[in-house]
Amino acid sequence: MAVYTEVSDEDVAAFVAEYDIGRVLALKGIAEGVENTNYLLVTEAGQFILTLYEKRVQAEDLPFFLSLMEHLSQGGLACPLPLHGRDGRALRELRGRPAAVVTFLRGLSPRKPHVGHCAGVGQVLAQLHRAGDGFTLSRTNDLSVAGWRDLLDKTADRADSVRPGLAEALSAEVEHLAREWPDTLSSGVIHADLFPDNVLFEGDRVSGVIDFYFACTDAFAYDLAICLNAWCFEADRQFNVTKARQLLRGYRQVRPLPAAEIAALPLLARGAALRFLLTRLYDWLYTPPDAFVRRKDPLEYWDKLRFHRAVASSGEYGLDP
Amino acid sequence: MAVYTEVSDEDVAAFVAEYDIGRVLALKGIAEGVENTNYLLVTEAGQFILTLYEKRVQAEDLPFFLSLMEHLSQGGLACPLPLHGRDGRALRELRGRPAAVVTFLRGLSPRKPHVGHCAGVGQVLAQLHRAGDGFTLSRTNDLSVAGWRDLLDKTADRADSVRPGLAEALSAEVEHLAREWPDTLSSGVIHADLFPDNVLFEGDRVSGVIDFYFACTDAFAYDLAICLNAWCFEADRQFNVTKARQLLRGYRQVRPLPAAEIAALPLLARGAALRFLLTRLYDWLYTPPDAFVRRKDPLEYWDKLRFHRAVASSGEYGLDP
Repeated sequence: MAVYTEVSDEDVAAFVAEYDIGRVLALKGIAEGVENTNYLLVTEAGQFILTLYEKRVQAEDLPFFLSLMEHLSQGGLACPLPLHGRDGRALRELRGRPAAVVTFLRGLSPRKPHVGHCAGVGQVLAQLHRAGDGFTLSRTNDLSVAGWRDLLDKTADRADSVRPGLAEALSAEVEHLAREWPDTLSSGVIHADLFPDNVLFEGDRVSGVIDFYFACTDAFAYDLAICLNAWCFEADRQFNVTKARQLLRGYRQVRPLPAAEIAALPLLARGAALRFLLTRLYDWLYTPPDAFVRRKDPLEYWDKLRFHRAVASSGEYGLDP
Repeated sequence: MAVYTEVSDEDVAAFVAEYDIGRVLALKGIAEGVENTNYLLVTEAGQFILTLYEKRVQAEDLPFFLSLMEHLSQGGLACPLPLHGRDGRALRELRGRPAAVVTFLRGLSPRKPHVGHCAGVGQVLAQLHRAGDGFTLSRTNDLSVAGWRDLLDKTADRADSVRPGLAEALSAEVEHLAREWPDTLSSGVIHADLFPDNVLFEGDRVSGVIDFYFACTDAFAYDLAICLNAWCFEADRQFNVTKARQLLRGYRQVRPLPAAEIAALPLLARGAALRFLLTRLYDWLYTPPDAFVRRKDPLEYWDKLRFHRAVASSGEYGLDP
């Protein structure tokens, strides 16, 4: 939630001159996106988002992200479409950082997600999975099992300061999941971070999906498991089975869920909870107190993880027979 | 530089329904304005700024600020125009905070102000002073002499931690300025914070003036003295007389400068430097390190103050004869 890199009007005028979108009329820093610097860019051709990629995004991943948005957009998904400059390039440099201009999407991300949003989220997630078909680039999910081990190592010595016994519990959890983690599920491009921040709505209708900077190649059902964590718990950390039912029903309207994916859901949801628990824990322990980032409570995901661990079968997620 | 108050889509839809601007199409938090929460609001009628006033702005001052913008806008100044709801009110409430919707202005605030900007700044400042004519409300400048004494008291015991001897030097400075401060200069509505952040440009042409939340009733020449501090020093804190010449020339093209105002400029500029020195010092000492605000170095204004103290006559500001 910050503008990390300030750009001068001369910088941005020269940058925009590389595109066919007319003169710059306005530029406003946007207080969204903890990873990158985003500006609302108004030109004679309309509204766009100008993104400067900060160091947390690996520069070598950017061609994957930008090509993916283009592929998905051409496949009919409502997502930002990167603009190509007159030289054909979508990725260039601004103030020493990789930078791109993408189309601006209408809609509001829900601050208070409710059950009416969930069917649309399920549908658009399945559309994304289908639209990713034929995309030739791939990117390893570096926040899957190997990444968890790495985060575990980096947080082990201080995890107990957050909750006594947490380090050992997490270690056991990673080992269990590493043993059980499925590797034969149907895979392809997944969003991997489809939280309410990243879905735009007009009323209860999804108008767009944004922020593809965790997208990678992994099991489709894992993406669904992330959404169960992101959309189907209340602020008091109670699971809302009505939301989950709507989410799963919406998904299956667009892409059928094979039996193997259904059976794997509790384990995948447990892994997804662990993934956000570990990254939040890392950020909690390593974010300097003067950083311009609001730290999120890692223990929210400890509670979610425990919920999934107690789920005996996918029917508990409200899955229609 | 933050969004202090999050609003839900339901909140904003209900709020916007009070105006005649169609449905909400998008809402983005803007990373500008350290005082208030600002959103870019896109509706079927176009782009607007939605502002939620946070606690640093006194609620009882809001009618002054909003009426002033309306008066100045009707007087031909390019500034935000507050919208009236169907009930006639410009000021209402959102999430428990006073809130208003104003028009969106095109243009970019210069990150690196250069000499080409300065004539336009002088002109628009004089236009603002003229457009304020006939405005019937008034507001005391609470950051003038009495306010300085108050800030001095609050910072005295810790000022020397910023620079040895600073507390005593500031005390002597306030006493000197209090004795010499003129009270017979031509007065009216002043902006009182016309820094580069608050002026929008299209190229070198001013397209708008924003952020009227320090506006008050005071000497016009004091506003000019603030601009000398805000626009005419380089990053290395050297005074740039070419910039000042352009600024003053631009101002005098629109509003003549009486001899008394010219003569008072060095003292007023010294007072203006002291005002920003004291508020920055206060923020420096009292901003918690985990606040989402970047503190600004108060000593920048110590150097500026010393420059103005050494000015023997207004000719040194590049004033044309």
